[in-house]
Amino acid sequence: MIARIRRNARGNRNRAVANAIGDDCAILRFSGGAEILLTTDFSIEGTHFRREWHAPDSAGHRCLARGLSDIAAMGGEPAAAFLSLAMPADLPQKWADGFISGLLRLAKKHKVELAGGDISVAPLICADIVVVGHAPRGSAISRSGAKPGHSIYVTGELGQAAAVLASLRADKKISPRSAPGRRHFYPEPRVEVGQHLRRHKLASAMIDISDGLSTDLSHICQESGVAALIAEHSIPRPSGWEAGSSSLHFALHGGDDYELLFTAPSSAEIPRKIAGVTITPIGQITDGKRGEIFLTDSHGQRKKLTPGGWQVF
Amino acid sequence: MIARIRRNARGNRNRAVANAIGDDCAILRFSGGAEILLTTDFSIEGTHFRREWHAPDSAGHRCLARGLSDIAAMGGEPAAAFLSLAMPADLPQKWADGFISGLLRLAKKHKVELAGGDISVAPLICADIVVVGHAPRGSAISRSGAKPGHSIYVTGELGQAAAVLASLRADKKISPRSAPGRRHFYPEPRVEVGQHLRRHKLASAMIDISDGLSTDLSHICQESGVAALIAEHSIPRPSGWEAGSSSLHFALHGGDDYELLFTAPSSAEIPRKIAGVTITPIGQITDGKRGEIFLTDSHGQRKKLTPGGWQVF
Repeated sequence: MIARIRRNARGNRNRAVANAIGDDCAILRFSGGAEILLTTDFSIEGTHFRREWHAPDSAGHRCLARGLSDIAAMGGEPAAAFLSLAMPADLPQKWADGFISGLLRLAKKHKVELAGGDISVAPLICADIVVVGHAPRGSAISRSGAKPGHSIYVTGELGQAAAVLASLRADKKISPRSAPGRRHFYPEPRVEVGQHLRRHKLASAMIDISDGLSTDLSHICQESGVAALIAEHSIPRPSGWEAGSSSLHFALHGGDDYELLFTAPSSAEIPRKIAGVTITPIGQITDGKRGEIFLTDSHGQRKKLTPGGWQVF
Repeated sequence: MIARIRRNARGNRNRAVANAIGDDCAILRFSGGAEILLTTDFSIEGTHFRREWHAPDSAGHRCLARGLSDIAAMGGEPAAAFLSLAMPADLPQKWADGFISGLLRLAKKHKVELAGGDISVAPLICADIVVVGHAPRGSAISRSGAKPGHSIYVTGELGQAAAVLASLRADKKISPRSAPGRRHFYPEPRVEVGQHLRRHKLASAMIDISDGLSTDLSHICQESGVAALIAEHSIPRPSGWEAGSSSLHFALHGGDDYELLFTAPSSAEIPRKIAGVTITPIGQITDGKRGEIFLTDSHGQRKKLTPGGWQVF
């Protein structure tokens, strides 16, 4: 299995990787002025994907997308990925091959080298992805720099991935290659947008929306020691699909969008599009109680927004 | 859970870690001349440990020891660890706390900071440990530098961990704090020995014995394109314990010892002890068929040794 992955991974090279699969450790080399960014994310059968819903290449794509999105949220340049993959002994080889191929396709797009990992046996499929990236020293965008008065922005549209998930739960068929389907099955981490914001020093704080806007905005507010006020009408939602009246709920609390959520001082000139992706202002950072979020609804009423996204324990 | 780990991990700091738990990525800083070493290893319930055999702090210790041992095998200095931990929703908090505390105790000993990871839910305990270390550029010891004529060495004694495992399988009680028990339940990765060999440029190739001598020596031979001849009588085995006649089998094929296996040219003066650990010569690298290992038995008979250690698929 390892020899097979090693062979298939040969097409994806990154010059930060000095030696890869085949030794006790991978060796990575970065230039002296670089900071190294490292993130790890589980993709566990039943928790993060289901074999009956997700084709193996979608599960592999989503697995790597989770890690790439964390690198994007710091404004980093991804370089290497490490896949730890545990599988049932009777899992068809075809499934594992499809998973790796979906992961490698996305890796290639972002010039990321699969540089190691671990293979093991478990009664269910359990993958842990490590993505290593870099950024010039002191330039990575943390969650803790938001200040009262800063504007809040999101990339793209929110809620589509969660709406698709809800349809899957309701036994509706969604084509993975349709426009809505792609947002759930093959999400695009906003790596270029993150790097643009970092290079031009535009963002004061940033996070990726993996757990839902309400939860991830509360993370920024917690780490920055601030509060936030967002406007319901300004939250970009997909139009023309069957999400209907629940689309606001999905946009506020739905996970798996992998859009970026960032703050910027009013002096920063934020473009309407970055790397082809629409950027939308949705509210303001305030000096309220740490971590608290308020939402102005369509009637102009202000109400408290409780984080309702994905949270473990 | 994450806040809890963050709190408990505060005692262990490493200056390579610029920010840790609480952002999308950890930020690591190394000096310009450093190469970064990275390794990932699973510890899965049922595959790598059992709740009825391993106290939670032993499972946590063994989880980190696996990663530290890989850093040791390259001669690296460990700096940061990342723990991805999936658990059943009904796992007692006490178990998780014990696991983390066993892991952190070993981390502290090696000045390793727990700098991030992921927490998730799964029907069984599934941990993936990432350890990041460093070494001056070009100095890390790979598996591929062994040449015909080089001597083969091992640290410590082999087979004890496997003998304990065999006893556990036979429903025998082994005290985890007894001398034999410790080798299985609380193995000591040979981090100092590895660094000594790297600093003094003594080893031409190195690997840690996690899968068994026969398997790990064949990895060195495969990666170096050489063969090996080892002598049965020279393999250091624990004395005075009940391993008996199967002790050779455990020493040749038993995993989990986490001793180091290395090669060195005859010009290298290898001390008999490094950092208090005995170093024993066990044979020679030869120019035979790539990856092939021969064993000279107690009657002076030479026979082929087939890798019989732990192998996935």
